[in-house]
Amino acid sequence: MSTIWKSRYALRTLGIRSSAIRELLKVTQRPEVISFGGGLPAPEVFPVERFEQACHKVLAEHGAESLQYGATEGYEPLREMIARNMARYGILSKAENVLITSGSQQALDLIGKLLINAGDSVLVEAPTYLGALQAFNVYGAQYVSVPVDDDGLLTEQLESSLRLGPKFMYVLPNFQNPAGVTLSEGRRHQLILLADKYGIPIIEDDPYGQLRYEGEHVAPLVVLDRENLRRDNGFTLGNVIYLSTFSKTLAPGIRLAWIVAPEDVIGKLVQLKQAADLHTSTFNQFVAYEVARDGFLDQHVKLIRQVYRERRDVMLHALEQFFPHEVTWTHPQGGLFLWVTMPEGVDSQELFRAALAEDVAFVPGDCFYAGNCEDGGRHMRLNFSYSEPEQIREGIRRLSLAVKMQLHRAHAL
Amino acid sequence: MSTIWKSRYALRTLGIRSSAIRELLKVTQRPEVISFGGGLPAPEVFPVERFEQACHKVLAEHGAESLQYGATEGYEPLREMIARNMARYGILSKAENVLITSGSQQALDLIGKLLINAGDSVLVEAPTYLGALQAFNVYGAQYVSVPVDDDGLLTEQLESSLRLGPKFMYVLPNFQNPAGVTLSEGRRHQLILLADKYGIPIIEDDPYGQLRYEGEHVAPLVVLDRENLRRDNGFTLGNVIYLSTFSKTLAPGIRLAWIVAPEDVIGKLVQLKQAADLHTSTFNQFVAYEVARDGFLDQHVKLIRQVYRERRDVMLHALEQFFPHEVTWTHPQGGLFLWVTMPEGVDSQELFRAALAEDVAFVPGDCFYAGNCEDGGRHMRLNFSYSEPEQIREGIRRLSLAVKMQLHRAHAL
Repeated sequence: MSTIWKSRYALRTLGIRSSAIRELLKVTQRPEVISFGGGLPAPEVFPVERFEQACHKVLAEHGAESLQYGATEGYEPLREMIARNMARYGILSKAENVLITSGSQQALDLIGKLLINAGDSVLVEAPTYLGALQAFNVYGAQYVSVPVDDDGLLTEQLESSLRLGPKFMYVLPNFQNPAGVTLSEGRRHQLILLADKYGIPIIEDDPYGQLRYEGEHVAPLVVLDRENLRRDNGFTLGNVIYLSTFSKTLAPGIRLAWIVAPEDVIGKLVQLKQAADLHTSTFNQFVAYEVARDGFLDQHVKLIRQVYRERRDVMLHALEQFFPHEVTWTHPQGGLFLWVTMPEGVDSQELFRAALAEDVAFVPGDCFYAGNCEDGGRHMRLNFSYSEPEQIREGIRRLSLAVKMQLHRAHAL
Repeated sequence: MSTIWKSRYALRTLGIRSSAIRELLKVTQRPEVISFGGGLPAPEVFPVERFEQACHKVLAEHGAESLQYGATEGYEPLREMIARNMARYGILSKAENVLITSGSQQALDLIGKLLINAGDSVLVEAPTYLGALQAFNVYGAQYVSVPVDDDGLLTEQLESSLRLGPKFMYVLPNFQNPAGVTLSEGRRHQLILLADKYGIPIIEDDPYGQLRYEGEHVAPLVVLDRENLRRDNGFTLGNVIYLSTFSKTLAPGIRLAWIVAPEDVIGKLVQLKQAADLHTSTFNQFVAYEVARDGFLDQHVKLIRQVYRERRDVMLHALEQFFPHEVTWTHPQGGLFLWVTMPEGVDSQELFRAALAEDVAFVPGDCFYAGNCEDGGRHMRLNFSYSEPEQIREGIRRLSLAVKMQLHRAHAL
């Protein structure tokens, strides 16, 4: 009788591609596999003790309130803290501009729900974050892709794509997932001017902005947009919705992220969030506030930077040492990922299977392209945050064996 | 420039009614107001100390795992515990049939996303749970309403509505929100037979099933449906998706609920949940498991029943004592709400304003009807779980003043 369901699924479920990453992660859970596949933070840097103190304090001082239903917008002191913290990066907002979400994935879902009607097109980077494609696919999004290079989105190719009238642009300016590249300051200015010229809103996804290991901070799009508007419009923000999260700076298991947007946009998103999950866990918001406060978050981010910088350097060094010279990779200034490009003829899905035979895993590049993955076939995304330095070295050595074998096959064909 | 957004909102946002309850709750936050408006559990019964022990244990023993990303389906031991607990009510399922959601509201959202294409109709009770209407409205649902009486949904009126071909039925069989009525056993059988005859799936929403204060437990629809299928179909469940939650038995602030469904339906819902919020807070799932285990949940539910039974009785007694004889109300055998019906001519929105002037609040009945609230105008929903007995008595006294005033006005017209 279970077939009663099948004919009833709404059409939109056809829009979801079975998640490659999810299935891959299952394969890689064998303990002997060194995985560069997930986007997991290093568990060693979770501030467990601080969480324990925070839980204790919250339950002792706000037991009933922290376990009760809460406001859809989020816990007021947390929203204020986020607004204060962002102000240091030039993002001037009030608590009213901040909506707490159940992870950034929910932010992407709510934005898709708010802005996409089936058939609308969304401008994305090629490659781009798989989770965003999954969120937008549910609402029947079509895509216009603009490639990235080492300086991020190729703004010189942007104008012709904007003329196609996408509903909005989805951009990851800092240490992009998956490519690890950062949008240069010059291109940020071009992007903002073009967005304004064509009236196309920008979704700026910035989960890693605080995790910079070298180079200078570049102003977020939301700040440049504000400057471009060239008037004191108070707290009415402009054409950019900005997203960030505690997943990479505190812990992903508490599912806490936020959206910064003009108040009328927040108002609409609050209605959608209320219908989607009423509100994000009150308890987790109280706890995150206690964990982050009194400068702890800043101190902790310094520690994370130190740990991840070392891991990135170990991976870059191992790639240099073990990988054949025909293979190239990005040099991320921050974040969690780097992007490897192999010569023509190498297929990253085949390479993935060969790598698994060597007990090492990554995510094949074709997962990160909207629509057909023309060029994705010879890329791989490598995560350097999760594994410890020795594992990273050993994993890259193993991966190099698989790469060499595939190169050999490609040459032989 | 903020106007750039307005023209871009997707059409579906028009489907959301500005939440009456939410706005009402803001008004009622003045401390002097006694509120029967929300559906809040009594904070006095939150097991704060047990939560503290659980947080301590989880962070000491599973610190890294509980703060890390987790599986979309949910934390395996929690899913197994839920399956075991439900088996005692005859709901035979495996962990594979259980999907953990971020509150029941997310379950409703995912079900709407899975099953509703814009224009599809959904069969609902009149009145029905406002949150379900909000979730389904986002996907462009139309509604077929079937009234309830003291024995729940009027199944004699069901068949003609089923012939209209709704995509599914949404039913709250136990201590329904808002009316407080329970679907009788006879009608449950009729409902199951009709659903099978017309091939219409049932969404059974059961947040309060364990909170029965008198009378005998009635088998859930998901159990009767299985019996009706008359064959041992293993763990392939039938035409019913069953929803329940920890919000009323542990605490709503942790946002933990679950869906029980056939495995292929769960598979589709998992894809949608992954796109919606990746997964529900790992930490909260670990903590809820530790709180609930070793029989604590059962013991705790007994305490809650005791506290809420008393509050229900106090409210029923106060209504009897203070309210004019033309007014009637339901006698809920469990749950959190009762439903008051006033004579023709009384408008519950006007009554609401009059009640606020007496520092007492409720939710006007018209919020709980799909489409036009033909009959909603003379009902009110009263919550008896949140306020303490003395407040309940005093609140009903105040409310009776407003009611008498409105009755007087109605007679005078």
